[in-house]
Amino acid sequence: MTDHHDAWRELAAQLRVDSIRSSSAAGSGHPTSSMSAADLMSVLLSKYLHYDFGTPDDPRNDHLIFSKGHASPLLYAMYKAAGAISDEEMLTFRDFGSRIEGHPTPVLPWVDVATGSLGQGLPISVGIALAGKRMDRLPYRVWCLCGDSEMAEGSMWEAFEAAGFNRLDNLIAIIDVNRLGQTGPTMHEWDLDAYRRRAEAFGWNAITVDGHDVAAIDAAMEKAVGTTGRPTVIVAKTEKGHGVDAVEDQPGKHGKALDQEQAAIEQLGGPRDIRVDVPKPEISGEPHVFPAGELTLPSYEPGTKEATRKAFGDALVALGKADGKVIAIDGEVGNSTYTELFAEAIPDRFIQSYIAEQQMIANAVGMQVRGWKPFAATFAAFLARAYDFVRMAAVSRANIALAGSHAGVSIGEDGPSQMALEDLAAFRAVHGSTVLYPSDANATAALVPQMAERSGIVFMRTTREKTPILYEPGDEFRIGGSRVVRRSSDDVVTLIGAGITLHEGNAAADELADEGINARVIDLYSLKPVDAETVRDAARETGAIVTVEDHWPEGGIGDAVLEALAEQQPHPPVVKLAVRDMPGSGTPAELLHAAGIDADCIARAARELVSRSRSAEPTHAAGGERR
Amino acid sequence: MTDHHDAWRELAAQLRVDSIRSSSAAGSGHPTSSMSAADLMSVLLSKYLHYDFGTPDDPRNDHLIFSKGHASPLLYAMYKAAGAISDEEMLTFRDFGSRIEGHPTPVLPWVDVATGSLGQGLPISVGIALAGKRMDRLPYRVWCLCGDSEMAEGSMWEAFEAAGFNRLDNLIAIIDVNRLGQTGPTMHEWDLDAYRRRAEAFGWNAITVDGHDVAAIDAAMEKAVGTTGRPTVIVAKTEKGHGVDAVEDQPGKHGKALDQEQAAIEQLGGPRDIRVDVPKPEISGEPHVFPAGELTLPSYEPGTKEATRKAFGDALVALGKADGKVIAIDGEVGNSTYTELFAEAIPDRFIQSYIAEQQMIANAVGMQVRGWKPFAATFAAFLARAYDFVRMAAVSRANIALAGSHAGVSIGEDGPSQMALEDLAAFRAVHGSTVLYPSDANATAALVPQMAERSGIVFMRTTREKTPILYEPGDEFRIGGSRVVRRSSDDVVTLIGAGITLHEGNAAADELADEGINARVIDLYSLKPVDAETVRDAARETGAIVTVEDHWPEGGIGDAVLEALAEQQPHPPVVKLAVRDMPGSGTPAELLHAAGIDADCIARAARELVSRSRSAEPTHAAGGERR
Repeated sequence: MTDHHDAWRELAAQLRVDSIRSSSAAGSGHPTSSMSAADLMSVLLSKYLHYDFGTPDDPRNDHLIFSKGHASPLLYAMYKAAGAISDEEMLTFRDFGSRIEGHPTPVLPWVDVATGSLGQGLPISVGIALAGKRMDRLPYRVWCLCGDSEMAEGSMWEAFEAAGFNRLDNLIAIIDVNRLGQTGPTMHEWDLDAYRRRAEAFGWNAITVDGHDVAAIDAAMEKAVGTTGRPTVIVAKTEKGHGVDAVEDQPGKHGKALDQEQAAIEQLGGPRDIRVDVPKPEISGEPHVFPAGELTLPSYEPGTKEATRKAFGDALVALGKADGKVIAIDGEVGNSTYTELFAEAIPDRFIQSYIAEQQMIANAVGMQVRGWKPFAATFAAFLARAYDFVRMAAVSRANIALAGSHAGVSIGEDGPSQMALEDLAAFRAVHGSTVLYPSDANATAALVPQMAERSGIVFMRTTREKTPILYEPGDEFRIGGSRVVRRSSDDVVTLIGAGITLHEGNAAADELADEGINARVIDLYSLKPVDAETVRDAARETGAIVTVEDHWPEGGIGDAVLEALAEQQPHPPVVKLAVRDMPGSGTPAELLHAAGIDADCIARAARELVSRSRSAEPTHAAGGERR
Repeated sequence: MTDHHDAWRELAAQLRVDSIRSSSAAGSGHPTSSMSAADLMSVLLSKYLHYDFGTPDDPRNDHLIFSKGHASPLLYAMYKAAGAISDEEMLTFRDFGSRIEGHPTPVLPWVDVATGSLGQGLPISVGIALAGKRMDRLPYRVWCLCGDSEMAEGSMWEAFEAAGFNRLDNLIAIIDVNRLGQTGPTMHEWDLDAYRRRAEAFGWNAITVDGHDVAAIDAAMEKAVGTTGRPTVIVAKTEKGHGVDAVEDQPGKHGKALDQEQAAIEQLGGPRDIRVDVPKPEISGEPHVFPAGELTLPSYEPGTKEATRKAFGDALVALGKADGKVIAIDGEVGNSTYTELFAEAIPDRFIQSYIAEQQMIANAVGMQVRGWKPFAATFAAFLARAYDFVRMAAVSRANIALAGSHAGVSIGEDGPSQMALEDLAAFRAVHGSTVLYPSDANATAALVPQMAERSGIVFMRTTREKTPILYEPGDEFRIGGSRVVRRSSDDVVTLIGAGITLHEGNAAADELADEGINARVIDLYSLKPVDAETVRDAARETGAIVTVEDHWPEGGIGDAVLEALAEQQPHPPVVKLAVRDMPGSGTPAELLHAAGIDADCIARAARELVSRSRSAEPTHAAGGERR
């Protein structure tokens, strides 16, 4: 055994040295936060992590998540020790164009998800562990290295709760209790029992250990892998910068390269080139395959009414029956978002996240790590709770579908706390995102299967109220498209809406037609990507545009239209109707009117715009297009 | 004592009846979630809450926060029982124009903050309790009614951690464990010990109680108010819909008016008109006043360099010395945001929230409830973690100042997890918000005091890198303004930037001038409100605009400019330069160039735009303005 111990200590020294070397080469990074966890990771990599670095997609591989993503030098040092990257590549740490980025991202094939925003790695580890238990049905393990500072993040306790409740004995968290945060001591410093008590209260097996004693670490990990029926946390007392006097347990040494690199490396016994034979997966079997059949989307009869949230729920069931990879994830509002239909029809692929939206998104991200196709749904307003998780999911290149119901003032009586009025802006500003806002149930049904196949963060906003069915079942609605609902050869204004406001725009067009004003009406159901061509054609052909949205003025439909027209010449006047005052309660009709986005208000705005254009016509640039 | 008990039971019956009456009048609402907590609130209102309803601003008042905001019918029934509102007004619940909204908001003078997005009331209660202990130095109590479903929100455990750590014995939380969430049973149903264990692990005093036994509730609250050195949670076993057989502990009864209102009211003994003499505050004293002096803002010499984040920190210290109401709140990154300067200079008014951004914002919201002027700061990227708290702070009509540092790719090597690239979009889409992005240290210093006086959510984005000082100390920079940095009589293009990109725009203008292309340069340091007039003048006078931002293309500087020009005729072509691909690590210069937003890229875009305009001139609408 002592041979092993010596080898592990040697490897730990190498991991420390390499953390110093890479961060010194970069001139920045977090060597001291890496050094504290080096012994823990040495034992893990040598004996407990079962991972084929040559085949990162092997479904039998364990998963290793650095929730403390800033300890990236340690992770990359492990990759070098495992032979996955060369020493040379390791030393490109933080260089432009290098995949050895400042914090880990999945540009490296062994990184499941990007970390670096603290408090996310553990929740996502829970999602992967859930995928192992409930979907893949393979006994791989998920190992998650956590920092002690990030234990102050509520999302960590959402994860503790979810893992305890789901009895995820395939999840092992390791808390690197190095006592020092970025600016000073953590709340609990080296009070390991503070963490142990909390974890046990949440139903976990908790083991405290000296994080620099490889024998003790070995014993703790042995116990952890032998524990069934609940997740384990190893609470390890460590020193930040352990092994180098100049930085060991010193304040002010967070997040910077060491001042005296060579002396530090010397104190650690100099560089080494140990290569570890990381254990390969010992488990066998293939990921579980759920049965799948034909896709038969729901259909709704034109002229009747249905809520798009209901159509989303119906379509998700249809898709789930046709594609065994599709998963539905709820935030305990499934009877509002209609994921409850999926729960009834396909309970095996339904995940209840309870009222914990960050964990809900983390579950989705974890599922897609293993190739599942997650749809997570809650009120659109409450997706704001998980905005940082969505932001990081984009950095993770994650493919997840999200649905937000109960958007806008049109939800009525519940009032502003339940009304999403910034969701379109927030989701449009996520890198590589797709933002959909269908206006009828058949369009909704047509879009849902495309969400599952689309890369990146795909968000659909649905409406609480039943709205008229406008389209035929089977009509095509592609992401990036739009639909001209009404047009004539002498349209003088274009009304652009989506979701609830498209119907108000339609009614306004009826009103205007009675007055001899022909309005084109566009259903802009795809906000991102937006159908710029149709918008530009309308601008050129009708000379004036009114956009209407059940959303604050910033970042929604109006801005998507302005973006499409930014470089267009001539650019017609665009009037943006949006919610501008804080709403209260009321009926949907009262609130739409008060916000100035119902049919009457749209007609009034269009009327004014047309008369303004006409009076300005002789000198007016925008007048030219009605030729 | 039994007289009291009978009276409390009678009052509880009235609260239940009134919860049913108001929700039935509205046709919606959450009567069953109100009925479960009626006994708890009856005892609280009759004996323990010290509150002068006639003087809601009395600093000695206790605070009562309904973290389970959907139990608003119960809260309004309490207000009626206290004589604060009439029965008639109570029955306007959820009517258009009524202040008796679906979920509580501060349009009512007794409501401190809006709730209804679960998991926020307790964190904000912690913020108010901190204000009581550390700022007001008055022994008022904060009572917080929590739902059991919302205990799954991580933010609740951030709050438990913060309250335990700060030993807030002026905080008493009450968990209404009614076992049933919106769609089904909660994780822990009636396992009161599950909550007790967790709370105790986080350093709280926990008391379990039968939530329908007024004597037991009385004893529990007595114990709670006698507890010193730590916060108390009363974990109460209750039944949803208690007292009415048709709904009591029944699934499927969440969030809807009762079917048989009259029978239910009859079973509860019919309507009553009990008026409670709510105890007045017994404590004396005035809120603590911190000394204040003259405002002497820091100044920076033109031609030197400084980071705007440093100027923010310097100016905050200056403001704090001049205004005893100003509070600085950190998320354990004070050496990055430079709130550490405040911590050193004015430790009494510095709050450390650790790595818990939701609690950080909740601390700010809680502070402003009591009239303090909080500035909370972290990396701009990590403010995304608290986006739902910011959204709700706007519904609360809260006045809080936020600073986000380390924005954009210009932070360099740390990589995308640390780069805010959606913050401008997210904050612009908050109702009533102000969004600032100063380009030099003197402008930053000038804006900081205005942040403290501004209503609503005021966000300032600061830059990590040192940038040139462009302006004189003492120059005026008002919110809603902009600064034309460079202009001539024959400008043919306008470059608009802010923060880091303003300097790139300046350099581009130098390059262009060498080629005989005169560019106007605008520092758009106030994104919301935006100086539309200056933008429109530039559009008219120069005929082409290039916007440049270290941000995704959606929702930032470019869109603020497009919004200003939406109705402008003629509208010049606007080219938006922004970050369009996911960045990695690199130096700031490498990443700015790769993103296409450095001086060279700006000059190229301007050159192309000018040559396009010139070649199109004869027929080109936008050509008209160079007359």
